Amino acid sequence: MKGLWLEEQAIRVRDDLAVPEPAPGEARVRVLLAGVCNTDLELMRGYYPFTGVPGHEFVGRVDKAPGAARWEGRRVVGEINASCGECAACRAGRRTHCERRTVLGIVNRNGAFAEFLTLPVENLHDVPDALPDDQAVFTEPLAAALEIQEQVRIGTGDRVVVIGDGKLGNLVAQTLAVTGCQLTVVGRHTEKLALLSARGIAVGGAESLRPAQADVVVECTGNPDGFELARAAVRPRGTIVLKSTYRGRTSLDVSRLVVDEVTLVGSRCGPFAPALALLAERRVDVRPLVHARFALSEAPAAFAAAARPGVLKVLVLPDGAASA
Amino acid sequence: MKGLWLEEQAIRVRDDLAVPEPAPGEARVRVLLAGVCNTDLELMRGYYPFTGVPGHEFVGRVDKAPGAARWEGRRVVGEINASCGECAACRAGRRTHCERRTVLGIVNRNGAFAEFLTLPVENLHDVPDALPDDQAVFTEPLAAALEIQEQVRIGTGDRVVVIGDGKLGNLVAQTLAVTGCQLTVVGRHTEKLALLSARGIAVGGAESLRPAQADVVVECTGNPDGFELARAAVRPRGTIVLKSTYRGRTSLDVSRLVVDEVTLVGSRCGPFAPALALLAERRVDVRPLVHARFALSEAPAAFAAAARPGVLKVLVLPDGAASA
Repeated sequence: MKGLWLEEQAIRVRDDLAVPEPAPGEARVRVLLAGVCNTDLELMRGYYPFTGVPGHEFVGRVDKAPGAARWEGRRVVGEINASCGECAACRAGRRTHCERRTVLGIVNRNGAFAEFLTLPVENLHDVPDALPDDQAVFTEPLAAALEIQEQVRIGTGDRVVVIGDGKLGNLVAQTLAVTGCQLTVVGRHTEKLALLSARGIAVGGAESLRPAQADVVVECTGNPDGFELARAAVRPRGTIVLKSTYRGRTSLDVSRLVVDEVTLVGSRCGPFAPALALLAERRVDVRPLVHARFALSEAPAAFAAAARPGVLKVLVLPDGAASA
Repeated sequence: MKGLWLEEQAIRVRDDLAVPEPAPGEARVRVLLAGVCNTDLELMRGYYPFTGVPGHEFVGRVDKAPGAARWEGRRVVGEINASCGECAACRAGRRTHCERRTVLGIVNRNGAFAEFLTLPVENLHDVPDALPDDQAVFTEPLAAALEIQEQVRIGTGDRVVVIGDGKLGNLVAQTLAVTGCQLTVVGRHTEKLALLSARGIAVGGAESLRPAQADVVVECTGNPDGFELARAAVRPRGTIVLKSTYRGRTSLDVSRLVVDEVTLVGSRCGPFAPALALLAERRVDVRPLVHARFALSEAPAAFAAAARPGVLKVLVLPDGAASA
């Protein structure tokens, strides 16, 4: 089959990949659409070691599910962490932290920039018929945004600031807006902020932040400047949610965190079911985030486009579907 | 009056300090005994700007309390943050984070290494008659240790690791032991660890730590090595409590915190009433922590002693009481 191959910080399209055979308990999924995430770009830059097919945001159709034939033909999205079910983390209910996990397109499992992928059947979620592929493909990052609310109680009285107006910041902001909290998004890009203000969300530049104004700050930039803004904006005993990974090590003034008794919360993958529900109920709108679509054969160009400043979501389609 | 004076990273004993007059709502307290804290040493090293009398751990006797005469003559300890009662933090109930606070011996308020100090009457707590001065003087650091339990729920099933066997680590460990959690203290000093194992607390060196073994890790060393140990010992979705300030900026692998969804909690001053109760009920034992006593005139020698490796608590007494 065709697929994008990452090896030693270089990507190329290959035609010679074996169509994967699902292991017991797994399904093979024909990819209908996949999204480029910043993590994919970071994998390519070598921030994490990975050789294989990248890609973890997808919508597809189940092609083969031995032992779970009822899944065959269904349109699905899939949780990206494949867990063992037996380690201490799994037994404690923290399956996304399984000590032996593979992660679709990130850790020891080929991903979605290919004609087919495999995932455990238990990772699959049906996509509602009314939800188009180019919205369903946002389920994974939207679930990651919802993880914040699994970790931190956020209610109508809370003053929440999101730092970053990129695709992650946008989804985080839209999911937080659903809580009715007092939300402000801080970013550098007028046109990206405009997408949020069009939905009634307050936006501003970094200069609009006041010290200690926020009960909760969500850092979505992944750069140290963003962290410093978050640090200045959070009140004593407030919470900073770290939603992005940072390249290398980051220098922090830990003493300020101690003196102000600030809580930092690392936040990664989240729940798919409420993400699908938000999309199906049109309570978030991902359509303005789609910047461009590329055929799988042009996936390197898709990566290049996604890496350009100002670009939001870039989607990759199977070659045959590229003109659809 | 006599007092220790800190100015431009140098300390000296002065005889020419004015006896402080209590402001409205304040009491003047004659210091009976004061303790040297690592924060005092950090002030002297210039980590924080402060000019004046350092010292924030004390037991004393109320000398004068205009408008609150019932306090006069009572033996007291005192909370160290003097708050305005009117700012946003105070109105929200976070008085130790008052935006206009002074802090005894640390921020804009002369401290306990002197014959007298002043504090708001509302900061004072009676010392039970049966509790000797040289135990009551530990109320403030013990309260700081108890702050952890105000911030993080810790129960009998929780696996808790304390990194650091110094005076702070010791008090933190003793307060955590009261919860019945599964506690281990990691340190480098055989004789300090022995104080804890004598109380039935499990102890070990850094080499005894297993990856992801702990639900909660309390970092009490204030150095980056301690943080790295904490990071390695905490499980995914676990909590690291930062109990020490760190000199300057500290380099962290923030991405690991995100991927493992670890929570960091900065922790500072805590509640005095339960600290006094633990001391009065003899549920913690601070007596083995006292390393040496110095007269106020010899306070610079007390600081030098406290700064030596392996030394636990150094106490400073009024000159007349030094031989008592």
